[in-house]
Amino acid sequence: MTERHEVVNLAAKLAGFEDHWSPKIVAAFNGHDVMVVKVEGEFTWHEHAETDDFFLVLKGRLVIDLPEGAAVTLEPGEVFVVPRGVQHRPRAEEETHLLLIEPAGTPNTGDPATAAPKDRI
Amino acid sequence: MTERHEVVNLAAKLAGFEDHWSPKIVAAFNGHDVMVVKVEGEFTWHEHAETDDFFLVLKGRLVIDLPEGAAVTLEPGEVFVVPRGVQHRPRAEEETHLLLIEPAGTPNTGDPATAAPKDRI
Repeated sequence: MTERHEVVNLAAKLAGFEDHWSPKIVAAFNGHDVMVVKVEGEFTWHEHAETDDFFLVLKGRLVIDLPEGAAVTLEPGEVFVVPRGVQHRPRAEEETHLLLIEPAGTPNTGDPATAAPKDRI
Repeated sequence: MTERHEVVNLAAKLAGFEDHWSPKIVAAFNGHDVMVVKVEGEFTWHEHAETDDFFLVLKGRLVIDLPEGAAVTLEPGEVFVVPRGVQHRPRAEEETHLLLIEPAGTPNTGDPATAAPKDRI
């Protein structure tokens, strides 16, 4: 849960860690986790059968590979929602900062066995 | 619904309208509307009994008055979640741009009779 009346400064939260592909929970919202994450390089292809996947780029540039050779590129201030059940692979040539929103408990790889733990910061 | 593979540039969406306190839907996510809105001046005190209220400031400065004389001030890149059932009044001295996320169909005043219609842009 969010602390009472806590304003979350996303840049300050991002300044507090260095690891990549390891989302940190910064707020809770309607059963969803609001998270920040630093990414660089390629993630694994995966899908979430039960939930759409919300991405907002805060810094850097994110490519999301999609089925059939499609891809989207997101710059800062751009949002993309990967619909549930759609295979996707996020990747970033340089370190990129994201805001993610997912139902609480969603494994970041789509598979609890390979998912990164999500710490609250 | 989001168009297939549509990247949403929030600043471009905000450049497309001028009215205040009239959220525009730019994406859909897990039964929620992702919206942008321009605000200036004081909104009405209201609450949403059934949903938390997600605010991210993109430009400007937002004050959210809360019960018992409390208030929070949000600068760009800052998030605040008003818990469900908590009375609040957003206000902004200068024009301020926000990203809002609410369950689809949530009236912005908490009351369908007084709520602004939400167009998809």
